[in-house]
Amino acid sequence: MTGLLTDLYELNMAASYWRRGMNEQATFSLFVRRLPPTRGFLVAAGIESCLEFLNELQFDEQDLRYLSETLGFTARDLESFRRFRFTGDVWAVPEGRVALAGEPLVQVTAPLAEAQLIETLLLNQVTFETTIASKAARCVIAAAGRDVIDFAFRRTQGIEAGLDVARVSAMVGFAGTSNVEAARRYGLVAAGTMAHSYIEAFPNEIDAFRAFAQDFPERATFLVDTYDTIRGVERAIAVIKELGLRGQLAIRIDSGNLGQLARQIRRLLDRSDLSHVRILASGGLDELQIEELVRGGVPIDAFGVGTKMGVSADYPYLDTAYKLVCYADRPVMKLSRGKVTAPGRTQVFRRSRPFSDLVALYDEPAPAGRAPVLEPLMTKGRRTGRRPSLTESHARFQADLALLPDSARNLRAPKAPQVRSSPALRRMSDETMRRLIQ
Amino acid sequence: MTGLLTDLYELNMAASYWRRGMNEQATFSLFVRRLPPTRGFLVAAGIESCLEFLNELQFDEQDLRYLSETLGFTARDLESFRRFRFTGDVWAVPEGRVALAGEPLVQVTAPLAEAQLIETLLLNQVTFETTIASKAARCVIAAAGRDVIDFAFRRTQGIEAGLDVARVSAMVGFAGTSNVEAARRYGLVAAGTMAHSYIEAFPNEIDAFRAFAQDFPERATFLVDTYDTIRGVERAIAVIKELGLRGQLAIRIDSGNLGQLARQIRRLLDRSDLSHVRILASGGLDELQIEELVRGGVPIDAFGVGTKMGVSADYPYLDTAYKLVCYADRPVMKLSRGKVTAPGRTQVFRRSRPFSDLVALYDEPAPAGRAPVLEPLMTKGRRTGRRPSLTESHARFQADLALLPDSARNLRAPKAPQVRSSPALRRMSDETMRRLIQ
Repeated sequence: MTGLLTDLYELNMAASYWRRGMNEQATFSLFVRRLPPTRGFLVAAGIESCLEFLNELQFDEQDLRYLSETLGFTARDLESFRRFRFTGDVWAVPEGRVALAGEPLVQVTAPLAEAQLIETLLLNQVTFETTIASKAARCVIAAAGRDVIDFAFRRTQGIEAGLDVARVSAMVGFAGTSNVEAARRYGLVAAGTMAHSYIEAFPNEIDAFRAFAQDFPERATFLVDTYDTIRGVERAIAVIKELGLRGQLAIRIDSGNLGQLARQIRRLLDRSDLSHVRILASGGLDELQIEELVRGGVPIDAFGVGTKMGVSADYPYLDTAYKLVCYADRPVMKLSRGKVTAPGRTQVFRRSRPFSDLVALYDEPAPAGRAPVLEPLMTKGRRTGRRPSLTESHARFQADLALLPDSARNLRAPKAPQVRSSPALRRMSDETMRRLIQ
Repeated sequence: MTGLLTDLYELNMAASYWRRGMNEQATFSLFVRRLPPTRGFLVAAGIESCLEFLNELQFDEQDLRYLSETLGFTARDLESFRRFRFTGDVWAVPEGRVALAGEPLVQVTAPLAEAQLIETLLLNQVTFETTIASKAARCVIAAAGRDVIDFAFRRTQGIEAGLDVARVSAMVGFAGTSNVEAARRYGLVAAGTMAHSYIEAFPNEIDAFRAFAQDFPERATFLVDTYDTIRGVERAIAVIKELGLRGQLAIRIDSGNLGQLARQIRRLLDRSDLSHVRILASGGLDELQIEELVRGGVPIDAFGVGTKMGVSADYPYLDTAYKLVCYADRPVMKLSRGKVTAPGRTQVFRRSRPFSDLVALYDEPAPAGRAPVLEPLMTKGRRTGRRPSLTESHARFQADLALLPDSARNLRAPKAPQVRSSPALRRMSDETMRRLIQ
């Protein structure tokens, strides 16, 4: 992976550090400054992609030529870039765990230039994947045990984004994805039905239903809203009866008043002894609409959730930062208006009941009843242990979610659990600030 | 490029069409249903990526194994997938041109299964790139001739997204990007300064400024808000004087009241005979803040615009659709509530003054004073001509932008130009609907 996948200023700073022999250990902390108003918690994601990048990141001869010929770096700089490999340590909140604002998601300790060069990649991947995992978690909460399926691929911000969305939504409990390549790559359940175009390509709706059911008798889902939804359902029922279909059957609605239609459809199906035929709803759904439908007891068995989850439409990013907190054993902080950062290498100690986090200096002993959240995932540039499976990360998510208070899980007016600083960390902040203001 | 980069339902439908010999020509139309309330126009983008995908798309042996073993497609289906290549025609609004809702951005005419299989990829890329190009265009309008620089890479929705954001923002007039790999790949201007961490890594601010200026005397930008912004500016001025710096110098502010600070900084610089030193502002900027600063006559020379542009934060997607409009010479449409689509293969005829678009049947003659907007970009699976350069697409954008009425360029309450249908198209819609309702 090319080291040019970064912001120019990282290269400028790294070259300057190398020239000056500023190679001592630095610690950077990656954190979210504030939660969006509609988020009561975050789900950590992205660090595993980062660990893979860190393992591969380097500058090849073509990269060096660009650095020299176009960007004007010196021959000595090029030697430093050529030698660059990430040799540092990474502590992070494991993927799937709940995280909050104001506490480190990732802490990197490495020679200054190395830790600086990776800023852009780490921010990019952790911000994006955590944004999506946190949004998808809200959909899972809203569905309250009913299936949620990722339909986002067609409107994610690029193809790579679509693959990542399928993966992190599965991590928080989505039951399947429409994205076939993601299903293959990550071992997910591929899910899919038919489009309106399929119906329209046939001379009439019932011919289309019959054809599809003949071709996929084991997994026929009938999209019924191309022309007239209720007549569509009647035609689907006729085809199911006519062909004596069994297997996993479903009716899909994609427009109109989903709650009202689902009730009508359920009645029509039950009256025809088709209580095993499921109802799948889609069409611009987000977690608030799902919650409303579920609370209303609407007989929808599965929700296809697309764009709103796949781009985290209400809040498509998080206010992340990657800040130097310590260089050469000297704690540092910035005092920019509204952006003051806490200094020092830290650990997050979590209490489960009631849920609360304490940010402390990394070498403080764990307070009674609290366990550390940041784990060492990379040591001296090598991954510690193996990458967790999606199932393992999902189990972590479920365990944390079960401990979160209702106020944090609330979708409309959530209240995040408390994050406090230890007395020792507060003391260090005060001292550092005093030193800097002098 | 693997054909599995699609939604499962596309594969289901394609297999069904092939089994039934439904191989006649189909036309699909890709369009935006409605503009977001804060968009008065769109800038077409993404079609060039699509043409490259279409050229490469196929199913290799590993793909076929997955289709067979995991998804249960038959041996006969596999033969069809193995033979698949895109052999159709693509007409599209060329990249950089202004486009509106309710008119085709892309029209694909190909054997039914081929045109269906590519739906997901086309929607993904055209939606994403058009979303970003349209948002970036608003930033360029707001800056009213001052420089705008892409700082989005750290918070785009993935790495690939960051590369695309750099490219399409350059297409609409961004002056540079912080993204080094994008700059290399697309021949853009790489732009970058220093981070707060650079300042903090030194014992004090003036040492950091001096070091950076010694290392990059030709392009030193001083980030002055790490501790106290005005003292930072005084230190930057001291270093510029002390080292007798020339070249492209700038002061960068990233927090606080940007307008007020910029005026103070400008006065300090001018008083020190440094009127050639530019002021760069950044920090969560969007087009509305830029417009306000520019209208207030604030002396900021360049704006670094990041996340808000890079994810199109206020509206991170567009309501795009890819709809079958004609199969085997039979116009089709769907009647789903709120989602009725117009039938038939169409062309967009544009009048420049006053700006308005007319959607007509594709073989209608161009009405007087109107020119066609959709161009044939691919014929029988081969690109027509060569890919336009970014400069060419930028020229197209500038030409169209100059023709747009102020009401459409307005950033806060825009009013999109009119899009009407020709009498012949309306007649065909009515007839098709009558046929379907019977």
